Amino acid sequence: MTKQQLFEQIKKKQSFLCVGLDTDINKIPEHLLETEDPVYEFNKAIINATAPYCVAYKPNLAFYESEGVKGWMSFEKTVAYIQQRFPEQFIIADAKRGDIGNTSEMYARTFFDEMKVNAVTVAPYMGEDSVKPFLVYPERWVILLALTSNKGSHDFQLTEDRNGERLFEKVLRVSQQWASDGQMMYVVGATRGKLFEDVRKIVPDHFLLVPGVGAQGGSLEEVCRYGMNKSCGLLVNSSRGIIYADSSEDFAYTAEQEARKLQQEMREMLEMYL
Amino acid sequence: MTKQQLFEQIKKKQSFLCVGLDTDINKIPEHLLETEDPVYEFNKAIINATAPYCVAYKPNLAFYESEGVKGWMSFEKTVAYIQQRFPEQFIIADAKRGDIGNTSEMYARTFFDEMKVNAVTVAPYMGEDSVKPFLVYPERWVILLALTSNKGSHDFQLTEDRNGERLFEKVLRVSQQWASDGQMMYVVGATRGKLFEDVRKIVPDHFLLVPGVGAQGGSLEEVCRYGMNKSCGLLVNSSRGIIYADSSEDFAYTAEQEARKLQQEMREMLEMYL
Repeated sequence: MTKQQLFEQIKKKQSFLCVGLDTDINKIPEHLLETEDPVYEFNKAIINATAPYCVAYKPNLAFYESEGVKGWMSFEKTVAYIQQRFPEQFIIADAKRGDIGNTSEMYARTFFDEMKVNAVTVAPYMGEDSVKPFLVYPERWVILLALTSNKGSHDFQLTEDRNGERLFEKVLRVSQQWASDGQMMYVVGATRGKLFEDVRKIVPDHFLLVPGVGAQGGSLEEVCRYGMNKSCGLLVNSSRGIIYADSSEDFAYTAEQEARKLQQEMREMLEMYL
Repeated sequence: MTKQQLFEQIKKKQSFLCVGLDTDINKIPEHLLETEDPVYEFNKAIINATAPYCVAYKPNLAFYESEGVKGWMSFEKTVAYIQQRFPEQFIIADAKRGDIGNTSEMYARTFFDEMKVNAVTVAPYMGEDSVKPFLVYPERWVILLALTSNKGSHDFQLTEDRNGERLFEKVLRVSQQWASDGQMMYVVGATRGKLFEDVRKIVPDHFLLVPGVGAQGGSLEEVCRYGMNKSCGLLVNSSRGIIYADSSEDFAYTAEQEARKLQQEMREMLEMYL
């Protein structure tokens, strides 16, 4: 999917919501546990309920890997289901991979050749040759970690170099030499508020994937005020706030309500800041 | 496995070799492709041939994930095989994971609870709370990326802060507050030569996992001269130089020769520098 196509979806749905499919078998409603693949059944119900209100899905690989082979099957089936039923959705494999060149090539092959997801999250620590193998696939995206939403992000990402440039700023600046805003996005946590201004000074046109609204306490309004650009430029993720909003048999209905609520807030933001 | 137990194995075998099981289905001998699980059959043969000469195995997850569900099965079977046949071997899941707390917990559960590997490689970019969930398992290890062997490591890892501290040095220094040298190791590439001296100034007692000897051009002698400590403190990895030394039906025999050759060099290094 191209940047323009993604923006078209956002305008059409008046939403830049990404639903995080962080599906933990220990947290899904009991009645699904009798099915053959409870994680997949749960995901299908969540996807059917939320698809009208979002433009992207982001399964986090950790949650699938924790179930080993069975988890990988749930993951593959979930991706295939979205692609068949909702081909307009942007699928992000939240994998935070990154390794030496020949190894990153293998990861790229997995996610882009086999699974055909639209984007993969990648960690920047190992530098250019760990990221580039993901960039040889046209219309597939790398979403590079820049400034994450967690407390530990302070340990290294905010370290200033001799010229006062912080590490996340260097990641934003240097990585722009590797690909254009048609293939690269950045992770910037919603808990960052005004720091979005600093991010936008370096990457005015890129899309940002923004986790941390909801359970982690980030403000949607602040993210939009400081982070939105003329192509929207934001994919705001919510995981727990949608998929675990209700642990009863009505979970899908409640997920729909929560997704719709966010979509309505997003429509207002688009009217205000786009 | 404790640090002391690992050191005992090193002394017993006069080796600190780690064999990297980066098994690519496109590179394994043709005659194995007719078997039900060629990757597993290849690994078994390599393990049987090299076990006397090494103290650790390091399957890199990328190579297994690229085969999807089938690859995960090969990975799980390989780990189980080593644990049954060679329980004295230290198993490293080279996964380079790292995510926000609740997600890292899932990864930790996968590798330590389910697979029961001895160690996982973890990326430091997201900081303390992305690493700590791996540290609640006694006698299980985190191997944190510090100074990697690839060219791209120059992009960020060598960036100096205001006090002249380079990022990899900050990672070494700060992360020591998270765990002792009984649970933490660091990845330092063999291509670093004299930089091992700088590493040892900060982490004199820790074990280092050292990739990059062989195909990537690092010198074993230099690594030992500048990096060995009184508990050896080194696990030197070779992947391609051993497992793909020969693509004929004799691949396991050749792998054995290559592993033995490295073990003999390592014995000399232990005599010289320990």
